[in-house]
Amino acid sequence: MPTFHAAQLQRLTAAVFRAAGAPDDIAEAVADVLVDNHLAGHDSHGILRIPEYLQHIREGSIVPAARPRVLQESPTTALVSGSWAFGQVTAAFAADLAIEKALRQHVSVVSVVEAGHTGRLAAFTERAARRNVAMFMFIGTVERPLTAPFGGAGPVLGTNPVSFSVPNPAGDPVTLDYATSAIAAGKVRVAKARGEQLPEGVMLTRDGQPTTDPEEWYRGGVLLPFGGHKGYALAVIAELLSGPLAAADAYPGVVGRSGIFLFAVDAATFRPLAAYGEAVSRTVGRIKAVPPAPGFDEVLVPGEPEARARAQRTRDGIPVPEATWSAVSEAARSLGVDVAAVIGSGADA
Amino acid sequence: MPTFHAAQLQRLTAAVFRAAGAPDDIAEAVADVLVDNHLAGHDSHGILRIPEYLQHIREGSIVPAARPRVLQESPTTALVSGSWAFGQVTAAFAADLAIEKALRQHVSVVSVVEAGHTGRLAAFTERAARRNVAMFMFIGTVERPLTAPFGGAGPVLGTNPVSFSVPNPAGDPVTLDYATSAIAAGKVRVAKARGEQLPEGVMLTRDGQPTTDPEEWYRGGVLLPFGGHKGYALAVIAELLSGPLAAADAYPGVVGRSGIFLFAVDAATFRPLAAYGEAVSRTVGRIKAVPPAPGFDEVLVPGEPEARARAQRTRDGIPVPEATWSAVSEAARSLGVDVAAVIGSGADA
Repeated sequence: MPTFHAAQLQRLTAAVFRAAGAPDDIAEAVADVLVDNHLAGHDSHGILRIPEYLQHIREGSIVPAARPRVLQESPTTALVSGSWAFGQVTAAFAADLAIEKALRQHVSVVSVVEAGHTGRLAAFTERAARRNVAMFMFIGTVERPLTAPFGGAGPVLGTNPVSFSVPNPAGDPVTLDYATSAIAAGKVRVAKARGEQLPEGVMLTRDGQPTTDPEEWYRGGVLLPFGGHKGYALAVIAELLSGPLAAADAYPGVVGRSGIFLFAVDAATFRPLAAYGEAVSRTVGRIKAVPPAPGFDEVLVPGEPEARARAQRTRDGIPVPEATWSAVSEAARSLGVDVAAVIGSGADA
Repeated sequence: MPTFHAAQLQRLTAAVFRAAGAPDDIAEAVADVLVDNHLAGHDSHGILRIPEYLQHIREGSIVPAARPRVLQESPTTALVSGSWAFGQVTAAFAADLAIEKALRQHVSVVSVVEAGHTGRLAAFTERAARRNVAMFMFIGTVERPLTAPFGGAGPVLGTNPVSFSVPNPAGDPVTLDYATSAIAAGKVRVAKARGEQLPEGVMLTRDGQPTTDPEEWYRGGVLLPFGGHKGYALAVIAELLSGPLAAADAYPGVVGRSGIFLFAVDAATFRPLAAYGEAVSRTVGRIKAVPPAPGFDEVLVPGEPEARARAQRTRDGIPVPEATWSAVSEAARSLGVDVAAVIGSGADA
């Protein structure tokens, strides 16, 4: 499998989006987020998405030169239109607004409408945590529903991702970041490709019967929420905050039904930052001191697997499957990008 | 099983706490919350708790005449000391502060330290939702840890309850309210009493081995988080917000380690309330229109089981198990409360 330095993938991604019409700063910003997702170990939100985003540009659902803008704001709030810009640019803009307002007013909420696909939410909530602001981010159904409600036989929710990052001044942010569905649609495709069965409790057939056969996905199968009624409840909260509360449906051009809801609170609201940081370190230390259960090497805190992947991939490079590399290279060449020249030396790092 | 009108249990509960030293308004407020929990169907947070709270009063960890107070505040924030008052009084005070601030500033956060046991969190987050404010509430480890981290063999977290209520102006609030442990400790006791096995995936033995035997709880067994690593991540976020961020550990008298973290946002922040309400109704209607899966009669939204219990129990009364009734009656009599006189006619409603 070809392996690249982060900087190589960043240069290539930026070159592709520049060639597709994005100004320099936008192309760089989108590339930064996609490569950061690789570093975090989440290749499903990396350069794999380039051909899909180019398709969105051709269809008009991503406008590469567009920029998000504030529709209304107060000292503690902002309603942002993504202007159908790249979702990564919009989410970073919204997160930065929420961070600035939280640092001035202790707490803020930002709603985003008319947003493109943002990818991994932790890229934005950790942006806040690194500035000592805790941030929550919720996204509801976008385009086609995929996930059944608890006790239901058909789809009505998206994968409704949620991300909560809490600052950890002495280390990496503690981050919850996941789909509220029991499995990602992409993992069903992977199981099918490998001829493997799915775990129990992640999918129903189109008739509402439990199944572990990934083929059922292609016959109208429906994802289940994680954790039964508890995960379902979190998916519904994400749906209501990012849709009705965020006012996403009031903007008729919006893809599907939902927007983005962000909440931010300054970690130094109730005590000095140093005391906060010490308390976080003590809590994290207490959790990690628990002896591992059989089958585990150690206890990790949420976000730690990603922090480890980042250290390892920054050092050893990012492996890219052949099929992904071919698709991305072909997409780049179709826009006149000289892949070898952009990548330069140091491939197979 | 004896069955009572809500008003009867309310009068008895208030009389008991008055006799234990609570001023009228505090006794009434605690009674209101405990009886509301019965109406919602959650008997584990009802009058069953009376003997336990009387014990706390004798031990000094509940001060029946104490009142919560604001230690510091800004237009968007408040740090509240519960003053070791009844947790129900403190949580309602904190929720009301958060509601008022959110209605003025769109959004607020409130931290509570030195708080007594609050019981069911939805009692407070729904108080906000009925005033058209969305509210989140998190509580971390209090006293002894009971729950293992994902991949761990020993306890380090509490049952870490979380509650999110979203206003639904045309109906009942939509409410997520649950422990982030896979099962409540009380349900393990019930299973043992009935000689039943536990479901898979809710408990480990003290050696970290999976078990379905409720007896293992009494041998040092450990609860698991719900939904694997996903529920665990939510438990950790609750721990960090209600502890380090809320500054609970900075108040040395605090029971255990954690406080309460509340976040509130005015539902009319980004659009008029009427438009918000219509959007919520449409979303709820879309979810409820999903055909039920085999084994289910219909799809419910989170909070709907409690709303139904409330309608049924308001009409038909609240059944109280004999053992609970004896314990409560005995506790009442020990304080000189004439149970028959307070309850009056209409028992076995």
